[in-house]
Amino acid sequence: MLSFDFEEDRIRQEIMRLGAKRVLLQMPQGLKSHAIKIAKKVEACGAIAIISVAPCYGACDIALSESQELDADLIVHFGHAKMVKQRKIPALYIEAKTSVAVDVATLKALPLLANYKRIGLATSVQHLETLNQATQSLSDAGKDVIIGDAGQLEYAGQVIGCNYSNVKTIADRVDAYLFIGGGIFHALGIVLATSKPTIIADPYDNRAFTITNEAQQLLKQRFASIRDAKKAKTFGVLVGLKPGQNHFDSAMKVKTIAEEHGLSAFLLAGKELIPENLLDFPAFEAYVNTACPRISLDSPGKFQKPILTVNEFMVVCGEVSWQQMLKKGLFEK
Amino acid sequence: MLSFDFEEDRIRQEIMRLGAKRVLLQMPQGLKSHAIKIAKKVEACGAIAIISVAPCYGACDIALSESQELDADLIVHFGHAKMVKQRKIPALYIEAKTSVAVDVATLKALPLLANYKRIGLATSVQHLETLNQATQSLSDAGKDVIIGDAGQLEYAGQVIGCNYSNVKTIADRVDAYLFIGGGIFHALGIVLATSKPTIIADPYDNRAFTITNEAQQLLKQRFASIRDAKKAKTFGVLVGLKPGQNHFDSAMKVKTIAEEHGLSAFLLAGKELIPENLLDFPAFEAYVNTACPRISLDSPGKFQKPILTVNEFMVVCGEVSWQQMLKKGLFEK
Repeated sequence: MLSFDFEEDRIRQEIMRLGAKRVLLQMPQGLKSHAIKIAKKVEACGAIAIISVAPCYGACDIALSESQELDADLIVHFGHAKMVKQRKIPALYIEAKTSVAVDVATLKALPLLANYKRIGLATSVQHLETLNQATQSLSDAGKDVIIGDAGQLEYAGQVIGCNYSNVKTIADRVDAYLFIGGGIFHALGIVLATSKPTIIADPYDNRAFTITNEAQQLLKQRFASIRDAKKAKTFGVLVGLKPGQNHFDSAMKVKTIAEEHGLSAFLLAGKELIPENLLDFPAFEAYVNTACPRISLDSPGKFQKPILTVNEFMVVCGEVSWQQMLKKGLFEK
Repeated sequence: MLSFDFEEDRIRQEIMRLGAKRVLLQMPQGLKSHAIKIAKKVEACGAIAIISVAPCYGACDIALSESQELDADLIVHFGHAKMVKQRKIPALYIEAKTSVAVDVATLKALPLLANYKRIGLATSVQHLETLNQATQSLSDAGKDVIIGDAGQLEYAGQVIGCNYSNVKTIADRVDAYLFIGGGIFHALGIVLATSKPTIIADPYDNRAFTITNEAQQLLKQRFASIRDAKKAKTFGVLVGLKPGQNHFDSAMKVKTIAEEHGLSAFLLAGKELIPENLLDFPAFEAYVNTACPRISLDSPGKFQKPILTVNEFMVVCGEVSWQQMLKKGLFEK
């Protein structure tokens, strides 16, 4: 089993400092199996621990309304760095860093990076501390390593599901990217934001691979969704109700543009914008999603109708071309 | 298609009276296909309509936090009578009454009621106006009809998923119940609350039937869940976060009783207490559910672990016997 740093001392100190009596523990799926262990530590401090069972995919999803309904005096949010600024309830972010070594995976990435000299390095919050190690391995192999910092996220080199500003800001100065971490989710985001070759060094499986095929497949699917949505007359415009996903003004803008183009558009709001929750609205022929853009991009096949990002909807309306949209990014503002 | 009374005039008047600019429309699954039609009426009044996509099973689930996050100035809640008292956001309840005739179904119920003289009549909010018609049909057949009113719900004779006080209050004075409405959900609740013979007169399919077998099957399943939970050492105590389902004090009481019996118990909170959201906590061997009791009773097979009502948990702890619990009801306070 992987070991994560849950910073239990910091949690205890924050409970003591605030005199917290009810502490809401919120964690993404992969960390929930550790919840009881952490709850015991919280209760050893004299507070009641309440474990959130809701799905949690990012720091955008900080459990503010849940905490208010529970009269919690502290949220401990695991697995993500701070994103939403709020003063309603004290929130402690435990990034759950892992100490897994990245040198083997990085060395395995070198053959895939053979044609590229200038490498942009990026990772998710869990592996930030390994960027030095990876930089060293790449430099030893004669590469120029660049780590971007656009100032929007907590850390240089960090990417999150919906924000690739740190890699975009160095796009003109690199030939390819190396992403350190598990899964293809973040690396796919890098390709969609930059259209550059991107290699994954996976320290869990100690392997390296490219995701060019997956990215091309996804772009084909997006092209088809836009083509299908061009036939639609009635659009549902999705408003996300997670604290960092509520872009009501953007939804109103989409509604207005749709109506200017002679289309019908109505706002639909929800916390969990999952396919099941859209099944009961047969009259909508397509959706425009203003919440987390990854809802549109990562499992479009699960939705029965096209579910477009705002940028993609602009292609449907003819406001921009497919090529212009790709240049901007599928979901960049 | 069934026709419902959406009281569009009353909606328009309330929007005008409040000068509402953002109106959240919330409806159960069966009414969502009417959402666009209602949204158009709202927008004709100069307000923006926002349709909630979240599942909604009762007036306990009134969308308060969602409305606050959307700065809505009016909630229009369809399909249920008022239940939660709150002053945060104006809420209009549209019960969506149907005008379907119940005389044929009531006549078909008569053979099934042959052995019973005194009949307790009950229905869901949609069919309240048909109680007179059903009373007439039963009286014509020589029955004594009683409609209960315990004062807890909006209307005499009304039952909702978690409250059968109107039928319990007349249990000593009736031989059997006749429930007017579709599906077995409410009638099953009547049996679980009263242990009396209960017949359904379904005006949609114009048929009548008993649900004794379904009730016996469910009680067997509950008995087995309690037996399994007696082996558990670590319990998850579920706290519901829908406004009318948050029984934090009850959850704390369960935790305390569990610990007094040498068991581990931790609080788990969520808005949607669905099986998928409990899969990530393998260490819990059983759950005690303090939210909507029907979560425990209506699809236990979907949960991988026993999911008990609070009353059932008292049987697990040996505080009351199975027979005593049945007499009180599986979920009555």
